[in-house]
Amino acid sequence: MNSASPIPTIALLTDFGTTDVYVGTMKAVMARLCPAVRFIDITHAIQPQNIQQGAFTLYTCYRYFAPGTVFLTVVDPGVGGVRRPLAAQAGDYSFVGPDNGVLSYALAEHDDVLAVELSNPDYRLEAVSTTFHGRDIFAPAAAHLAAGVPLAEFGPVIEDYYRLPAPQLVIQGSIIEGEVIHVDHFGNIVTSIGEIRRSVSGGLYLIAPFGRGQQRQPVITLPSAVTIQLGTLKLARIHRTYSEVAPGAALALVGSSGFLEISINGGSAAQVFNIAIGDPVTLQIG
Amino acid sequence: MNSASPIPTIALLTDFGTTDVYVGTMKAVMARLCPAVRFIDITHAIQPQNIQQGAFTLYTCYRYFAPGTVFLTVVDPGVGGVRRPLAAQAGDYSFVGPDNGVLSYALAEHDDVLAVELSNPDYRLEAVSTTFHGRDIFAPAAAHLAAGVPLAEFGPVIEDYYRLPAPQLVIQGSIIEGEVIHVDHFGNIVTSIGEIRRSVSGGLYLIAPFGRGQQRQPVITLPSAVTIQLGTLKLARIHRTYSEVAPGAALALVGSSGFLEISINGGSAAQVFNIAIGDPVTLQIG
Amino acid sequence: MNSASPIPTIALLTDFGTTDVYVGTMKAVMARLCPAVRFIDITHAIQPQNIQQGAFTLYTCYRYFAPGTVFLTVVDPGVGGVRRPLAAQAGDYSFVGPDNGVLSYALAEHDDVLAVELSNPDYRLEAVSTTFHGRDIFAPAAAHLAAGVPLAEFGPVIEDYYRLPAPQLVIQGSIIEGEVIHVDHFGNIVTSIGEIRRSVSGGLYLIAPFGRGQQRQPVITLPSAVTIQLGTLKLARIHRTYSEVAPGAALALVGSSGFLEISINGGSAAQVFNIAIGDPVTLQIG
Repeated sequence: MNSASPIPTIALLTDFGTTDVYVGTMKAVMARLCPAVRFIDITHAIQPQNIQQGAFTLYTCYRYFAPGTVFLTVVDPGVGGVRRPLAAQAGDYSFVGPDNGVLSYALAEHDDVLAVELSNPDYRLEAVSTTFHGRDIFAPAAAHLAAGVPLAEFGPVIEDYYRLPAPQLVIQGSIIEGEVIHVDHFGNIVTSIGEIRRSVSGGLYLIAPFGRGQQRQPVITLPSAVTIQLGTLKLARIHRTYSEVAPGAALALVGSSGFLEISINGGSAAQVFNIAIGDPVTLQIG
Repeated sequence: MNSASPIPTIALLTDFGTTDVYVGTMKAVMARLCPAVRFIDITHAIQPQNIQQGAFTLYTCYRYFAPGTVFLTVVDPGVGGVRRPLAAQAGDYSFVGPDNGVLSYALAEHDDVLAVELSNPDYRLEAVSTTFHGRDIFAPAAAHLAAGVPLAEFGPVIEDYYRLPAPQLVIQGSIIEGEVIHVDHFGNIVTSIGEIRRSVSGGLYLIAPFGRGQQRQPVITLPSAVTIQLGTLKLARIHRTYSEVAPGAALALVGSSGFLEISINGGSAAQVFNIAIGDPVTLQIG
Repeated sequence: MNSASPIPTIALLTDFGTTDVYVGTMKAVMARLCPAVRFIDITHAIQPQNIQQGAFTLYTCYRYFAPGTVFLTVVDPGVGGVRRPLAAQAGDYSFVGPDNGVLSYALAEHDDVLAVELSNPDYRLEAVSTTFHGRDIFAPAAAHLAAGVPLAEFGPVIEDYYRLPAPQLVIQGSIIEGEVIHVDHFGNIVTSIGEIRRSVSGGLYLIAPFGRGQQRQPVITLPSAVTIQLGTLKLARIHRTYSEVAPGAALALVGSSGFLEISINGGSAAQVFNIAIGDPVTLQIG
């Protein structure tokens, strides 16, 4: 446990929704095994069985948590099949989930990843079901990790954990091709074009996300004159914030996670534009 | 307070939804009366005023919680009327809620139930409304119980608390008749046929749930050759897990709570089959 | 920190929904800065960018929280623009949010309000985005306040914080004119006619909410014979509780927050009556 975080903290990210007992039951199991634990829900609204959305969501938020946080990430269409259960440590964090890539965007940012298969029955519930490893394998592992059990106790090291392919992001000369990766609660359309950072001089540049460039160096600079195209929508610049355009007008900006977003000031871009996850988006420089 | 659970824990199960202030206000009241409390939300998405769904939901999850947990269970269509407010202790747990049967499936599993009417005004808010006993009566009682106030302080013992009839489960020779009791977030169709357990030799047997057989002895064994019928759907065996059938195919399996479920591997059975809560389902042996 | 509340508590109220990482990320930031913190979610389902609904919701529940609670209230359509970020202390509570009126109904109840602009960069995240001040400015301020940093440290005192106009409530002789202000999860229609209190003799009287009458004195008494009109619906009295009318029948009653509500016993008034937020409702005495 990190001295700055005296309360062991487990952050939860699943596709379980909140209408069933699944999330509450996992918390019950964890509170039993690590009585002092605190839970922070990231979201339970990952599209059912959408591993890539889970991986992207974890990637965009895990770095804001206190060192020592354990991430319980369960998007698990293969439960009961051959996919392995996984725990990993990377940087200041621990991660628990199925070995289907849901952890891999976060892990790809680190060169100190230590991953093990969760095979030790001492750290599972006594009866393991074939349909709810979140409760029977992953929650107990997260709780024991939060309580201080060393990672090596859980099972053998594995090097070949599954790396999920990154979302579309191709830079060809002055054209960047990405895709729609998420639509948020406000109807903001989040694209895979990122991460975009602002330099001290105010200019924008792009670094490769998802561990594509582990050194996270600038890949390309973005001038003020650009052409962004999403379906029939064309936008000519990247704005700083919503109020720079009129209420009801569309704009492109760099979202809070560093990815290019298409928004409407005071409205929902997703309601106005007929967009689906995976739709192509291009950004042309000049 | 149990020594294994130094943090007093209150688990919440309601039909309040999460769009209003109702759940947050109950937590505010409880944190004020039991400052060290931890909350675990089971769900607040019980169908409004559906007492049986609330009772079933509590039944399927309460046993995973740490000893000492207090369950605040409010599905209360009769608020402000003649139904009594109730608190009970059974096994290692305490339960608080209206005396309309919402606690009764969980209580039926125990032969040491001690139930009282919540009549002592010292453990209510000063002003008790006629529409929100969750805030004014049940939450204060749960908090005081979590803080260690003995059950007998809250009011007189009652023996005749309301027992809700169990969901449909009739065994006639080789035919078991049940009903659809829940549809989960993934579209899995949960039936009242259960609880089903797996013996060490791998065979399945059924025990009577909801306290029908308080000894919880095997009632009937389930061979591998069965015929399950739900509407026009017929299935010929009980599978172990989703991946035993092709993606998109329907299957029956024993869900994580021990009840027979109808699912689709990688899909939503509820979207494919036109099913309502209460629809009959039969399982024929041989 | 108040001695009755040894755990620093932050209550959250936003329009962020729970499908994105926004709420979890704010909690991550706060747990990092105030490791002992406890969170209580009020709701994250405020209609996107509906400042008045946020202000009303905060007003109806904040008084139930323990002294010392910090309220993090983010409904922030003007993020990144000119509106100021605000923190205030009033009565036993602290409040953090944008200076757009979302805090103002709660603040109006107090004559000891001390408000400051959140301008001190020491209490913000290092990099402040232009789209998510919840994470970068408001959450850090709430956490530092919960950890005991004095309000004066955050920035200069401001007297002219924005006061949102109160919802419609006009008393003209024997007629009270209000509007629909909220529809809850059960379909109860909440109006701006309130707050209504019951005297020890059982009679009803109305006090002016939202700080209109800071002394909170009775403004008008409500006899048993009234005529309530909402669209084509007419009701002749204010009932005490749902079960006083037949199942399926409509009634008016005083809701748990003290405002006049239109309900259906055992049903959803919002489903039966075609009502929108802002629709006029009148109560005629006699």
